[in-house]
Amino acid sequence: MDITRYEMGPRFSEMTVVDLGNAKLIYLAGQVAQNSSLDVSGQTREVLQYVDHLLAQAGANKTHIVQARIYLASTGDYAVMNAIWDDWVAPGHTPARTTVGTRLVNLDYKVEIEVTAAVGKIA
Amino acid sequence: MDITRYEMGPRFSEMTVVDLGNAKLIYLAGQVAQNSSLDVSGQTREVLQYVDHLLAQAGANKTHIVQARIYLASTGDYAVMNAIWDDWVAPGHTPARTTVGTRLVNLDYKVEIEVTAAVGKIA
Amino acid sequence: MDITRYEMGPRFSEMTVVDLGNAKLIYLAGQVAQNSSLDVSGQTREVLQYVDHLLAQAGANKTHIVQARIYLASTGDYAVMNAIWDDWVAPGHTPARTTVGTRLVNLDYKVEIEVTAAVGKIA
Repeated sequence: MDITRYEMGPRFSEMTVVDLGNAKLIYLAGQVAQNSSLDVSGQTREVLQYVDHLLAQAGANKTHIVQARIYLASTGDYAVMNAIWDDWVAPGHTPARTTVGTRLVNLDYKVEIEVTAAVGKIA
Repeated sequence: MDITRYEMGPRFSEMTVVDLGNAKLIYLAGQVAQNSSLDVSGQTREVLQYVDHLLAQAGANKTHIVQARIYLASTGDYAVMNAIWDDWVAPGHTPARTTVGTRLVNLDYKVEIEVTAAVGKIA
Repeated sequence: MDITRYEMGPRFSEMTVVDLGNAKLIYLAGQVAQNSSLDVSGQTREVLQYVDHLLAQAGANKTHIVQARIYLASTGDYAVMNAIWDDWVAPGHTPARTTVGTRLVNLDYKVEIEVTAAVGKIA
């Protein structure tokens, strides 16, 4: 068993990967938009690009996501966020998902998404 | 390693199961009551029935839950939710648990519960 | 595969450990301060001591944390909480992390922290 950290900072890493030998478990930090002036559609698109980008570094992709947690600053944005999500998510590979309304740590953030994935040794 | 999805929709699956060979890790979507006109007791009961029902499809049951996250629309419902939870949870097999107050995506929802479980190959 | 529970109560356990043979996955309940009269700095320090204490019982420590979820009663406390976190977290071993603002089940609680860790059989 070993743990690899990606885009590691002094406070947190953007992704950690637990290598179990025959499989890897992948944990992403909650992803938020760098461009927080975007509306919820734009922020959701940007966040999902970060998810794709991080998973790729671990030899995985969105078909390997097993769980997603979506935090919305306003639950009134649920339908708009879903429209972007539905376009993005891999048909036949949809994860377990939870969406709740919370405050986010920057008032401009409209959505934060955290995912867990699993990938075989030879992905 | 393979991933099986249960009650899979185009947006999310109600449950995903990571088969590691000697063990399975089970991730549930946040469960909410279908009958959202129920009070918090009724909604909690209904949600926990869905948890039982989903776990059974993966050859697991509530003794295999390792973590539960409970989202309450009103933290004032904590004691009432706990009364139903305490009657339901398996003695000697209580999971790690976190309960927080959040907004839920439907204003009628009073409680949402998400669990992670683990079960051996021969459960 | 077996599951061990630590500091198990009738409602929840403070920690559950899934033993996969070559590795253990460790799930902590959301930790809150016993001394809820403390300010956010004091509560964060106390919570992180509980995290250390629980992980030690599973033969793990803060270098094994792969994911942390931080729930703040006030997102205005983000910087103050981070100052304590930054002093505590293990350099070179920072976990994936998500921080959101939620209500907590006791109005005096200012912070709740939940972690997931992984440790090899011979830690």
